[in-house]
Amino acid sequence: MSDITDAAKRLLLGRPVSSEFVNQAVLPKRIALPVFSSDALSSVAYAPDEILLTLALAGTSALIWSPWIGAVVLLVLLTVVASYRQNVYAYPNGGGDYEVTTENLGKKAGLSVASALLVDYVLTVAVSISSASQYAASAISALRGHETILAIGIIIVLTVINLRGVREAGRAFAIPVYLFMAAIGTLAMAGFFQYLSGTLGTAHSADFTLVPQEAFDQGLTGLGGALLIARAFASGSAALTGVEAISNGVPSFKKPKSKNAATTLLLLGLISTFMFATILLLAQATGVKFVEDPATQLTLNGAPVDQGYIQHPVIAQLAEVVFSGTPWLVFIVSAVTGIILMFAANTAFNGFPILGSILARDGYLPRQMHNRGDRLAFSNGIMTLAAGAVVLVWIFDAQVTRLIQLYIVGVFVSFTLSQLGMVKHWTGKLRKATDPIQRRRMRRSRVVNAAGFVMTGVVLVVVLITKFTHGAWITLLVMAVLYIVMGGIRKHYDSVAEELDLGEDIAGARALPSRVHAIVLLSQIHKPAMRAVSYARATRPSTLEALTVAVDAEDTVRLRKRWEALEIPVPLRVLNSPYREITRPVLSYVRSIRRQSPRDLVVVYIPEYVVGHWWEQLLHNQSAARLKSRLLFTPGVVVSSVPWQLSSAENQGVETTYFEQSGQPRAIEDRRRR
Amino acid sequence: MSDITDAAKRLLLGRPVSSEFVNQAVLPKRIALPVFSSDALSSVAYAPDEILLTLALAGTSALIWSPWIGAVVLLVLLTVVASYRQNVYAYPNGGGDYEVTTENLGKKAGLSVASALLVDYVLTVAVSISSASQYAASAISALRGHETILAIGIIIVLTVINLRGVREAGRAFAIPVYLFMAAIGTLAMAGFFQYLSGTLGTAHSADFTLVPQEAFDQGLTGLGGALLIARAFASGSAALTGVEAISNGVPSFKKPKSKNAATTLLLLGLISTFMFATILLLAQATGVKFVEDPATQLTLNGAPVDQGYIQHPVIAQLAEVVFSGTPWLVFIVSAVTGIILMFAANTAFNGFPILGSILARDGYLPRQMHNRGDRLAFSNGIMTLAAGAVVLVWIFDAQVTRLIQLYIVGVFVSFTLSQLGMVKHWTGKLRKATDPIQRRRMRRSRVVNAAGFVMTGVVLVVVLITKFTHGAWITLLVMAVLYIVMGGIRKHYDSVAEELDLGEDIAGARALPSRVHAIVLLSQIHKPAMRAVSYARATRPSTLEALTVAVDAEDTVRLRKRWEALEIPVPLRVLNSPYREITRPVLSYVRSIRRQSPRDLVVVYIPEYVVGHWWEQLLHNQSAARLKSRLLFTPGVVVSSVPWQLSSAENQGVETTYFEQSGQPRAIEDRRRR
Repeated sequence: MSDITDAAKRLLLGRPVSSEFVNQAVLPKRIALPVFSSDALSSVAYAPDEILLTLALAGTSALIWSPWIGAVVLLVLLTVVASYRQNVYAYPNGGGDYEVTTENLGKKAGLSVASALLVDYVLTVAVSISSASQYAASAISALRGHETILAIGIIIVLTVINLRGVREAGRAFAIPVYLFMAAIGTLAMAGFFQYLSGTLGTAHSADFTLVPQEAFDQGLTGLGGALLIARAFASGSAALTGVEAISNGVPSFKKPKSKNAATTLLLLGLISTFMFATILLLAQATGVKFVEDPATQLTLNGAPVDQGYIQHPVIAQLAEVVFSGTPWLVFIVSAVTGIILMFAANTAFNGFPILGSILARDGYLPRQMHNRGDRLAFSNGIMTLAAGAVVLVWIFDAQVTRLIQLYIVGVFVSFTLSQLGMVKHWTGKLRKATDPIQRRRMRRSRVVNAAGFVMTGVVLVVVLITKFTHGAWITLLVMAVLYIVMGGIRKHYDSVAEELDLGEDIAGARALPSRVHAIVLLSQIHKPAMRAVSYARATRPSTLEALTVAVDAEDTVRLRKRWEALEIPVPLRVLNSPYREITRPVLSYVRSIRRQSPRDLVVVYIPEYVVGHWWEQLLHNQSAARLKSRLLFTPGVVVSSVPWQLSSAENQGVETTYFEQSGQPRAIEDRRRR
Repeated sequence: MSDITDAAKRLLLGRPVSSEFVNQAVLPKRIALPVFSSDALSSVAYAPDEILLTLALAGTSALIWSPWIGAVVLLVLLTVVASYRQNVYAYPNGGGDYEVTTENLGKKAGLSVASALLVDYVLTVAVSISSASQYAASAISALRGHETILAIGIIIVLTVINLRGVREAGRAFAIPVYLFMAAIGTLAMAGFFQYLSGTLGTAHSADFTLVPQEAFDQGLTGLGGALLIARAFASGSAALTGVEAISNGVPSFKKPKSKNAATTLLLLGLISTFMFATILLLAQATGVKFVEDPATQLTLNGAPVDQGYIQHPVIAQLAEVVFSGTPWLVFIVSAVTGIILMFAANTAFNGFPILGSILARDGYLPRQMHNRGDRLAFSNGIMTLAAGAVVLVWIFDAQVTRLIQLYIVGVFVSFTLSQLGMVKHWTGKLRKATDPIQRRRMRRSRVVNAAGFVMTGVVLVVVLITKFTHGAWITLLVMAVLYIVMGGIRKHYDSVAEELDLGEDIAGARALPSRVHAIVLLSQIHKPAMRAVSYARATRPSTLEALTVAVDAEDTVRLRKRWEALEIPVPLRVLNSPYREITRPVLSYVRSIRRQSPRDLVVVYIPEYVVGHWWEQLLHNQSAARLKSRLLFTPGVVVSSVPWQLSSAENQGVETTYFEQSGQPRAIEDRRRR
């Protein structure tokens, strides 16, 4: 890496951060709540909209169902909260769904959950940021029509921030999350007050009539109606995403960690419930309409709605009604909602790389996913997540409604398997426990987790049935591909580890080659070549020879004469190359030496220029690079690069202090000098 | 490269060809003529069209000028032929314009010619193939509207053929060139016979009236008229491209080489003249109209021409008139013309890589342009040429008329400079020569070349004046960029060569480092690591230590214990890495050793996996690769890769015999074993 790249990286990403900071942050509940809840809370920005939007397909009368669907969603939400409270107690060191499932249900189930979670993190970013850009466009009219590019821009900004590493996470997270709670709380209170006092207005969209789809001419009847209600419920279940975040973060809580985490989780559940219910009820009271395509689905006095009609998200519509006298409050609500959605996406930017790192540690992903980048951030994971989200946003034009069809599948796969794992966990514990009080507590936990398993399992089935053709198949396909790829990577690492294992053959490992046959490759006689010869001679091999390939007859004659004139005590060997190739003759010569004396070691010294700029690299070393990569395939050969630093390469040094743990360089074999 | 890639390359490109074949082919005149003339002859497929097209801008009456313009073009052509006949005698070993100019006018002039020629080769391909695809579309109606993609497809096919290397060049070239001569000859004879007998019909386009551009309402008058005639002449000069080909190819002729080449050149000039004149005269006799945009420039009985009117190239239109009774003959003429155009493009595929190789030899282009690929072909040059031509065809929609504006500039730059060089050449010879007969011959040659210089110089000025704004500026710009880039590359190689030159310091070149400090990098203890340790020990360095970086505390403790258990007589040093980096601590440790004893040599052994598939490479060696590239920047360090071939890499071997010129491996230092 050149100096400039390095400097640019520093400027963009900040100074590197030392390991000691990694596990330092311990959060009190008042900070932990906002840190871990932005994902879960932010889903009220789009989940109610999706319920209304789905029901709208069956006409105005169908909207009556929305509070009931909401109630079922909340029932599932509270069940899941209760379930994960058990996880928090059972795994005080942080029981992510992947670990819980792997430990209790085995590697395959764990890998399924991992695939589901990876896909879901990407979707969290795509959905949250798409929704955020819709709120931004609803608040700032200049952004309308540019939602996709705006969303991609936000993802890029988040990526850079996360590559820098978020150190001030706690405090910076707390403020906007509490602002969001305050905004929705104020909206709720003002709204209910107006409702009770009879002063609550109606939404702008309340005057519209919904045009039902052909299938729903008769309203919500028959199997079609039931399926639509189920689909609305499935979409509304997006409200549950992010609930599991706290169970991953138990180690970050103040002691008693599990208790504090469980309390925070309960709090999160209650706040989420309150917000979700408020929005659905106010939406019904004010007659809010929300549809996928206003131009065809809305009519005003029998005529299609005006082309210029801009449909705002539900929260924005509610704010317009409730705060109709104070436009800046309306703006604040949209702005705060947009910001909380970005923080929700940011949760994925934390979660995805950590999961990736754990999977890399377990051998399911390439090792480099396990390396932390400079700023304590898992750079590779962050880049992968961002790339995935950008692709999704691009393909689906940043349309939340289309993206939400892909979402949720993954969440509920991991919910369901994790809860099943917990049931098994308690069963296993019960087998060993004898203390009746403990046993009673375990039994109760098992019942809670079993309820969670059944509930989330049913939702999963509903989601699969109602959304498969709408886009869930894409998620399942990607999950399957990830599952297969990760399994393949693990298999590869396993077979390599087995192949490389020392085993019992310690003597074999200690055996030394008997002789060293050194070869210096020459193409010209210049300083780099002479340095390579000197260095090779300094290592005092058993045999040493210089080797050149005769590509051009005249050049070779000149080289041979020059060599003889220098009177260096090393023989020069010339290989003919009828095909003007360099690599093949050298390779086959090296192999012939190995065949003659297989127990010897062949060391090939290659003089190499080191240049300072990439374009200079294009002008040099092309043959050397090819030759090196081929020689590596030959057993019993060491490829030694003897670099010659050209003046342009001189400013490329890096200086950092290193920290030594032990030992001093010790001369183990220094007979020659004596 | 993997086996599969290798096999695919073989399948596509054929078996490698030995050096011995390079200079084998010696051609009799009857084969040499077609081999070297396709470029020059094929230009009659578009040069007359461009004259008619340019004149058409001034209305129907202006077409009367076409034979006269043609006559001037032919005058220039014959002068150039005469000039190059002198080159052929003066440089019997092949005097390309680049060599002639460099030798007589110096490096800068030579580099200018080289830039011009490189650009022109690309344009030869673009123009010829665009024209070929127009002929194809005129013969096969299904191809109409797909000319661009067809042209790009043809270029790709030519590229593959040339990467294979054209061995059967002679015979394969001869047939279509003679067919083309026969086709045009038949067309001419039949046409003149019909003309004389009064049975020659009129072209379909003869009924059209040409709509003159506003500026030419009054016909060809004033400065504007003169400039248009000059422009028509400049476009018609495209007929001269390719005449120089024979002067490059003198060594390929049978003895007496120069004489045979000169005769062939004269023959080429005469045939070219005959064809060119025939086409222009027949076009006038049959009233052929050819315009850039039929929809706006042609009217029939006062009304704009039908939208569906397809304008065929002039040769095709002539064939339709002359062979009106026998459509298959019409088809044959178009087909043969298309094929000859492809052969013309192929000439560039031969010339460009050879010129590139010569320029690379002279240090103006990257060294790898000088390497021949497997099949005697300069693969890099071929790929560069094809890429340039594809880009041009794409940008200009395969429209010959637009491309022709860029063409010719380069040709005449090199014509002019080369002829000036020849004048200087003869002047220099005259200074030494004493034999009066020889002197007379030289004087005559000098006069011929001087005439050529004046003539081509005037044409160059005309071309620049009439075509600069129409596109010639692009050519000049690219030429300037090439000139600067090639000059820069040469400067770089020169400064590197100076930096690397041994000079007088032979003693310094022979000095040996005093001690060898060996370091083996360990990340785990497995077979590859133990092999690296064994190999390092086998080289018996002055000091030897194993080095590991503590990225993970637990892993390091485990590694240290395992190391001690193995009881290997090599100390293990652990470097702390608070930033979890591997590269920096190792680098700074190595530097600290160099600082302590600058005269010592540090050899760093890096165990490396060798895998068989590119995707496996992604899973391994990432840290090793980064570390290696950084260590190369540290002076006094040798980086030794100790490869461990994983089983997947086992089938990657190549076996070819090598040919040894001299010497047997000799043990120069084998004291240790005794």
